Amino acid sequence: MAKKGTAEERDLVHKLWNRGFAAMRAPASGGATKNPLPDVVAGNGKIYLAIEVKTTTKDKIYIDFEQIDALVEFSKKFGATPYIGIKFKYTKWYFIAPENAEKTKNGNIKIEKNFILENGLEIDEIVGKDKQMKF
Amino acid sequence: MAKKGTAEERDLVHKLWNRGFAAMRAPASGGATKNPLPDVVAGNGKIYLAIEVKTTTKDKIYIDFEQIDALVEFSKKFGATPYIGIKFKYTKWYFIAPENAEKTKNGNIKIEKNFILENGLEIDEIVGKDKQMKF
Repeated sequence: MAKKGTAEERDLVHKLWNRGFAAMRAPASGGATKNPLPDVVAGNGKIYLAIEVKTTTKDKIYIDFEQIDALVEFSKKFGATPYIGIKFKYTKWYFIAPENAEKTKNGNIKIEKNFILENGLEIDEIVGKDKQMKF
Repeated sequence: MAKKGTAEERDLVHKLWNRGFAAMRAPASGGATKNPLPDVVAGNGKIYLAIEVKTTTKDKIYIDFEQIDALVEFSKKFGATPYIGIKFKYTKWYFIAPENAEKTKNGNIKIEKNFILENGLEIDEIVGKDKQMKF
């Protein structure tokens, strides 16, 4: 199952700063409010990103559709491009737009390692340094 | 002195959501990284805001220039308009652009209640609902 990895979030935030973005993690708890929040928000004055971070030691990962709906809702309102950011063990970071991810019968998201290795975007692609689009 | 008010940050975030923005507080601790972070980041697809939140029960408030430099640096990189958001006891929220705030001899920022009541922007002005500019 998905594990919310603070260390991985920090690593991603660090990589975004290194690529000229200002990036911020969400607070540990949403607190009293129930506003939908992504794990990381970043911007560089031209590109704004909202990222839901998932890490796993397994070969696939499931994400509840509520979480993805929240990511998309936040992104639309904020003015950011939503991505699911995935870190499988021993792989680089990969990113996928919610609409390009595989859905289960229940409407949840299922991301398989082999699928993301082939179809995922790398960090330099989502920050605009490499315009190669896989979709 | 300035008191970092989480309750006030939540209140501000709530008010921004009510005005069509997606808003997020910074994590409680910057953690291992020393990246400059504002207290609140918000966007509505057109306007992006980075806000340093200050609250006090006194009649004036001082802010170290390092904090303001960090706010401005984050904002420039992210692509947001920087504001100091101030909540004096028994007043509404007021906002001021860092460059419009009074500076002390040491380069720190000093904001007096009377000054902000006259010159501060209200929340509906910084979210673009009311274009009246005081400067």
